[in-house]
Amino acid sequence: MTDDLRIGVIGVGIMGADHAERLARRTARARLVAVADPDEVRAKELATRWDGVRSGADALELIAADDVDAVVIASPGFVHEEQVLACLAAGKPVLCEKPLTMDSESSLRLVRAEREVGRRLVQVGFMRRFDPEYAQVRSVLAGGSLGRTLLLHNVHRNASVPSTDFRSEMIVRDSLVHEVDVARFLFGEEVVAIQVMSPAPTSHAAEGVVDPQVAIFTMAGGGLVTNEVFVNSQVRYEVRCEAVAERGSLVIGRPSTGLYSTSVAVGGGRWGGSVPADYRTRFATAYDIEVQAWVDSALGGEAVGASTWDGYAATAVSTAGMASLASGERVDVHLVSPDTLS
Amino acid sequence: MTDDLRIGVIGVGIMGADHAERLARRTARARLVAVADPDEVRAKELATRWDGVRSGADALELIAADDVDAVVIASPGFVHEEQVLACLAAGKPVLCEKPLTMDSESSLRLVRAEREVGRRLVQVGFMRRFDPEYAQVRSVLAGGSLGRTLLLHNVHRNASVPSTDFRSEMIVRDSLVHEVDVARFLFGEEVVAIQVMSPAPTSHAAEGVVDPQVAIFTMAGGGLVTNEVFVNSQVRYEVRCEAVAERGSLVIGRPSTGLYSTSVAVGGGRWGGSVPADYRTRFATAYDIEVQAWVDSALGGEAVGASTWDGYAATAVSTAGMASLASGERVDVHLVSPDTLS
Amino acid sequence: MTDDLRIGVIGVGIMGADHAERLARRTARARLVAVADPDEVRAKELATRWDGVRSGADALELIAADDVDAVVIASPGFVHEEQVLACLAAGKPVLCEKPLTMDSESSLRLVRAEREVGRRLVQVGFMRRFDPEYAQVRSVLAGGSLGRTLLLHNVHRNASVPSTDFRSEMIVRDSLVHEVDVARFLFGEEVVAIQVMSPAPTSHAAEGVVDPQVAIFTMAGGGLVTNEVFVNSQVRYEVRCEAVAERGSLVIGRPSTGLYSTSVAVGGGRWGGSVPADYRTRFATAYDIEVQAWVDSALGGEAVGASTWDGYAATAVSTAGMASLASGERVDVHLVSPDTLS
Amino acid sequence: MTDDLRIGVIGVGIMGADHAERLARRTARARLVAVADPDEVRAKELATRWDGVRSGADALELIAADDVDAVVIASPGFVHEEQVLACLAAGKPVLCEKPLTMDSESSLRLVRAEREVGRRLVQVGFMRRFDPEYAQVRSVLAGGSLGRTLLLHNVHRNASVPSTDFRSEMIVRDSLVHEVDVARFLFGEEVVAIQVMSPAPTSHAAEGVVDPQVAIFTMAGGGLVTNEVFVNSQVRYEVRCEAVAERGSLVIGRPSTGLYSTSVAVGGGRWGGSVPADYRTRFATAYDIEVQAWVDSALGGEAVGASTWDGYAATAVSTAGMASLASGERVDVHLVSPDTLS
Repeated sequence: MTDDLRIGVIGVGIMGADHAERLARRTARARLVAVADPDEVRAKELATRWDGVRSGADALELIAADDVDAVVIASPGFVHEEQVLACLAAGKPVLCEKPLTMDSESSLRLVRAEREVGRRLVQVGFMRRFDPEYAQVRSVLAGGSLGRTLLLHNVHRNASVPSTDFRSEMIVRDSLVHEVDVARFLFGEEVVAIQVMSPAPTSHAAEGVVDPQVAIFTMAGGGLVTNEVFVNSQVRYEVRCEAVAERGSLVIGRPSTGLYSTSVAVGGGRWGGSVPADYRTRFATAYDIEVQAWVDSALGGEAVGASTWDGYAATAVSTAGMASLASGERVDVHLVSPDTLS
Repeated sequence: MTDDLRIGVIGVGIMGADHAERLARRTARARLVAVADPDEVRAKELATRWDGVRSGADALELIAADDVDAVVIASPGFVHEEQVLACLAAGKPVLCEKPLTMDSESSLRLVRAEREVGRRLVQVGFMRRFDPEYAQVRSVLAGGSLGRTLLLHNVHRNASVPSTDFRSEMIVRDSLVHEVDVARFLFGEEVVAIQVMSPAPTSHAAEGVVDPQVAIFTMAGGGLVTNEVFVNSQVRYEVRCEAVAERGSLVIGRPSTGLYSTSVAVGGGRWGGSVPADYRTRFATAYDIEVQAWVDSALGGEAVGASTWDGYAATAVSTAGMASLASGERVDVHLVSPDTLS
Repeated sequence: MTDDLRIGVIGVGIMGADHAERLARRTARARLVAVADPDEVRAKELATRWDGVRSGADALELIAADDVDAVVIASPGFVHEEQVLACLAAGKPVLCEKPLTMDSESSLRLVRAEREVGRRLVQVGFMRRFDPEYAQVRSVLAGGSLGRTLLLHNVHRNASVPSTDFRSEMIVRDSLVHEVDVARFLFGEEVVAIQVMSPAPTSHAAEGVVDPQVAIFTMAGGGLVTNEVFVNSQVRYEVRCEAVAERGSLVIGRPSTGLYSTSVAVGGGRWGGSVPADYRTRFATAYDIEVQAWVDSALGGEAVGASTWDGYAATAVSTAGMASLASGERVDVHLVSPDTLS
Repeated sequence: MTDDLRIGVIGVGIMGADHAERLARRTARARLVAVADPDEVRAKELATRWDGVRSGADALELIAADDVDAVVIASPGFVHEEQVLACLAAGKPVLCEKPLTMDSESSLRLVRAEREVGRRLVQVGFMRRFDPEYAQVRSVLAGGSLGRTLLLHNVHRNASVPSTDFRSEMIVRDSLVHEVDVARFLFGEEVVAIQVMSPAPTSHAAEGVVDPQVAIFTMAGGGLVTNEVFVNSQVRYEVRCEAVAERGSLVIGRPSTGLYSTSVAVGGGRWGGSVPADYRTRFATAYDIEVQAWVDSALGGEAVGASTWDGYAATAVSTAGMASLASGERVDVHLVSPDTLS
């Protein structure tokens, strides 16, 4: 039996703490050894939950440490570039939460840097690719029994967002970006254009915030994707997808399909179930599978999940989306040719 | 007990024959007395199904007949204007199948003509308004418990259309027009702009036909409506609607909601049900309720259902939609001011 | 066109008033002409809702009237025998609400009396046979594609019953009897034995009332039927059925199947729909179809629906069920041989 | 960080191999060190899948080994008693697959033996207690918001069983025993009586085999449980449960609830999804959670899952069930008083 993978986690916010707990308690062949965060107190607090886990303030120190075989990055997006580059320099596998970086230029630099290393070391945390429902849709569509994929209809709703310091662009960059990856994953094609439309906003959105938003993606092969993103829906967390192909369609995430709801209750004149509270409950299984797959991969398996290219492409579409949100016009997405990378 | 309403049916195609059967066999206080169609043989054939029903070739003669109290028009759209005008002139209630007429100018003439009569005599056959599912969505949204309506997502699929003599515009005019009326009905507002997008077509569409189509409506209050219309889906008849409001959403017509499927079967490794065969099965109840409501209304009740104005507005949006289909651009819808009508 | 069927309704309680309204307003080729009830004031009150409907106290006078072609009996069960016999004597078609009579001997007398007339004049109001969901289950099972039917699982719940004057036997006689007819209808076989079990009662049942009850039917071919009847469920009206055959099963009436719920709503952290309020909402369509089918049949069509034999058999099973409720033991059902009837 | 739990697996059939894979690849803080099976070749074959796992023929040797901290027993039921006793003697935590033993006397001996050790060392493999759906039903019922539990309706179907060497009693002992544990788990009460009924068998059952079977449990508090067990359903694997309480009911495992099906597909005139292939797919998550919980518990947590008493009680009900299957009569279940154990 091989040794466990010794892992350091950077960032101890909600996502980082979640990953640390997952690595310490629910992931096979993983050994959490260190956490790092500029907020040293919080990092220490987290580390003391388990025996033998140390904490520190310095992410680069953690990456360089001899007893750290692999790294999970859950820090804010603007420090991802530096940290991922450090992992690449150290030749250590890294699971980097989305977004890969804050703009497509820096993401592209990571694509190039990894190419220079000569092998895949980076997995971007688009966890939906590991969700059993999305994986099944992908499998059916890729299997070809329904013919070519024609359309996707995505819905993405959060109960609410903070009323201060929230800007319309964040809906595109932080929420819609998941739908971008879903579209690329399910079609197996790039997004070539995006149009973000601004309906009359809900009264629950802060002054000036465009919420909900409707975005249309055009895929390289001519397919279209409609997306609703609504972050003040007042209804917990809903993520749905309908894929329409030439000979049939597939639906996931709707009330009374699949993982959406565990049981159906009847009482007080109503029937139904509860809506998942947030992304951690809805995608709990996806995260567990993602992290286990990453550990297995780092211990000698094939690279899995979203690559730096996927991270770069998603960031490029988000960037175009933010321009479209501002102008109301359809904006083309420009990616470098993959041929220029070698 | 009042006397029955004596009714003549114009047009003996699928829809006309369906209505005649409904009036003769399933509608209370209705008495089918005459059918008319230029194809006299077919009209006669239909009339002989029941005792005491006469047939003829001349629609206007039927409208004028002393023993005809009210008229159902199920003839092709291009003769609707003349026939509805004749009903108005005769002061007889008329249920006119959609579209009201082929262009918004002629529809507007009917609006004006009815105003001159001074009371509502025309009901346009947008049967979905009488469907228990759509009626419930309308009732919940109008009730206000969910706050303002923000978005609609409509899906409209037919298994297939004839491969000859079918043009992309017919998807807008004959199919999408139902979604136009649904949007106006559920929002209680006019459609002010429409954009029709052309995805890469299914290989099951005839050469040159844009199918599926994605259309976006902008409502007067700023709400948005996404529509998929797909007439060669290879999967029977699917009509769905999701309404999104400020505090919740409503879904109808999805597999395992409401009237979509009668039972759930488990067998051979699969579970599920059958998809409605066509619009007559899916909307059988809606048509029955619509026609009964029209008869009740003609016998002295309140006017119900879609008005000439609704027919005019729907035609105007369709017309703009056909322009948008051609240009790919968003096209504004121009309606006359209701104030100019009196 | 033939003349309408002129109909008298006996009994103006909830069911009778419902049928009168249905005949007057929603049934084609029917003409309500008279209502009769010992409570003359109430009968008069009902009759004045429509023009041309007279009222009276005497059921037999109504049956005998020259202008009454056919009769609907919605009076209490203990007067059914006399009234049905009067209809048979007058040669008039009759739709008699269930139960046919209060005991199997009197029901058998009606079977024999109808045989003497020589043709079917009586339809017993087991409306579920006309419910689209039950009809579909019957159709699939009878079609044979799933092989022989092995088991049924029925659930029958009412929100509550009056806390006074309610006895455990009424659950068997008034509620379970519907499941008896369903079992006979779906299996196409007689029930040969019944065992009624008494779980610890809900605290919402009146002192001494056995509620819920679990009943097991044994069918002539050896199939078994499990039944839950629960009349103080505190949850509106739920009627479900699962049929299990050799190669698959069918489910109706479960949340998110078929007619159970019209739309699915999402809001306030929950998703789901409303449960039908009572039997009149759940079986509204079944009643409409039943009454229209009866009118069509009386105007010259084939006899349809449950026969006097079906009414007799159901009563015989109920009677055995009440004995089983008392003893806790399985009780065999004894029917006369159909051969002895001619 | 504490050391991993070093685990030996006894039995390398389907279940044992599954557990070994789970421990080696998907369970945190677990280290598979040894497998044992009388079929040494097969044991060796399995062990070579991973580095550092040895194999042997002798279960007792494995239990005694110094580097084995805890044991999973997946051997045939008739050797469980000896193996569990050896674990108890060695003071090692053991996860023993159901049934605990083949008869209630031997199960009771294990209960007593564990009491003598003075702490819980044995977890019986009733994995449904860890299934998110069953756990949720338990949680809601135990929470009390619906009042007292009145009834359960369970359905348990397998596609087919081997046509040779299969006896009716195996349905009670191997399949129905899961429903026994579910009933005890959800009611929080003992089963005091069982009646097993024999419907006319499916033509897909071998000659003389009673399949399906309908079993009724009476709970200590008077609640009733109806169970269908059907092991030649020709439809893959279906496990359902409906719990009925005083103010509402809960449903799991029905088509279009919860984990039953991942996506809903529409195509070829049908909508629906696939039925889980077998217990390993349906309860994959339950097994993963069960084994992780057992490992966590063995590393110092609270004992979890079904106890020896639960195993003893389930075996006692099965034994009574086999007597009832033979006689057709209701058979009381006799358990020793827990007071006699100390």
